[in-house]
Amino acid sequence: MRSRSQAIRVLGIDPGTRVVGYGVLDLAGPAVEYVECGVLRLPTDESIPQRLHRLVTAIDEVIGELRPGVLAIEAAFHGVNAMSALKLGQARGAILALAVARGLEIEEYPPAMVKKAVVGHGRATKAEIQARVRLLCRLRREPSSDAADALAIALCYGHTRHAPPAGGGPRGARR
Amino acid sequence: MRSRSQAIRVLGIDPGTRVVGYGVLDLAGPAVEYVECGVLRLPTDESIPQRLHRLVTAIDEVIGELRPGVLAIEAAFHGVNAMSALKLGQARGAILALAVARGLEIEEYPPAMVKKAVVGHGRATKAEIQARVRLLCRLRREPSSDAADALAIALCYGHTRHAPPAGGGPRGARR
Repeated sequence: MRSRSQAIRVLGIDPGTRVVGYGVLDLAGPAVEYVECGVLRLPTDESIPQRLHRLVTAIDEVIGELRPGVLAIEAAFHGVNAMSALKLGQARGAILALAVARGLEIEEYPPAMVKKAVVGHGRATKAEIQARVRLLCRLRREPSSDAADALAIALCYGHTRHAPPAGGGPRGARR
Repeated sequence: MRSRSQAIRVLGIDPGTRVVGYGVLDLAGPAVEYVECGVLRLPTDESIPQRLHRLVTAIDEVIGELRPGVLAIEAAFHGVNAMSALKLGQARGAILALAVARGLEIEEYPPAMVKKAVVGHGRATKAEIQARVRLLCRLRREPSSDAADALAIALCYGHTRHAPPAGGGPRGARR
């Protein structure tokens, strides 16, 4: 449906129960245009349902304002304990249901794939991700770790769909 | 805010990723008035986000039509594996965010508390729950297991808030 050169606006989300990072990019082939990023803090003195509602409301505002065509979200990873998985699942479920309701295409990427796409290997540190995201999105300053993770997830969409992100090093240059 | 004798309409939900039971009751003190129950089947050939959206849309229809004041939902239980917990969490998160958005009061009950409230002990079988729910809700036939579980969760609200459910046996009669 979309040509390779047509820009697609991607909303990346790094979900959590206390802090949720989000980042919005316009991707056209290897070209990356930064739009916005930020962090949603969910007050821990509120009940989980209240926090989920706050999260959905905030993400819905971002969607309504910036109108992304794609939600890129970290795939659930195995190995966490059941309680953490349940909490993470609740945040993911609320976001996923919203994204479908708003007509977004949904893509999920495992953490290692996100790191590989952005830094070049699957065991990148948070600092490495922040530095590479700053470079790839041509930001004046490094975004916070949660916002950088969200932008990295959005970049992963471009990496898997079109080509390595623009401005890449030796690994980013192969194609 | 509410007097003890005023009826409150409670939506009980037994969440899952493939089948979701729901049941609606009007509860006024120990009196139970059955309204509706049913089962939502989520097609397994659809993606998880699609299923979550279908689930939220269906529950939202029930809320819009029957206007319950309370969502009673099974509390997440420990001991499941991380993958099951994540899936259950996703269904719960989507429902909880919707319930807050629609202004419902939310109450969560552990499975053992639901069983104890309805059958009288925490290790009740599915068949025991179905039989007791039929009796307490004065249903002509036993509801399906998932719908019965949802009605049992709604009954638990009345049990913990007001009094043992009406029509109880020896255990239901103490107060």
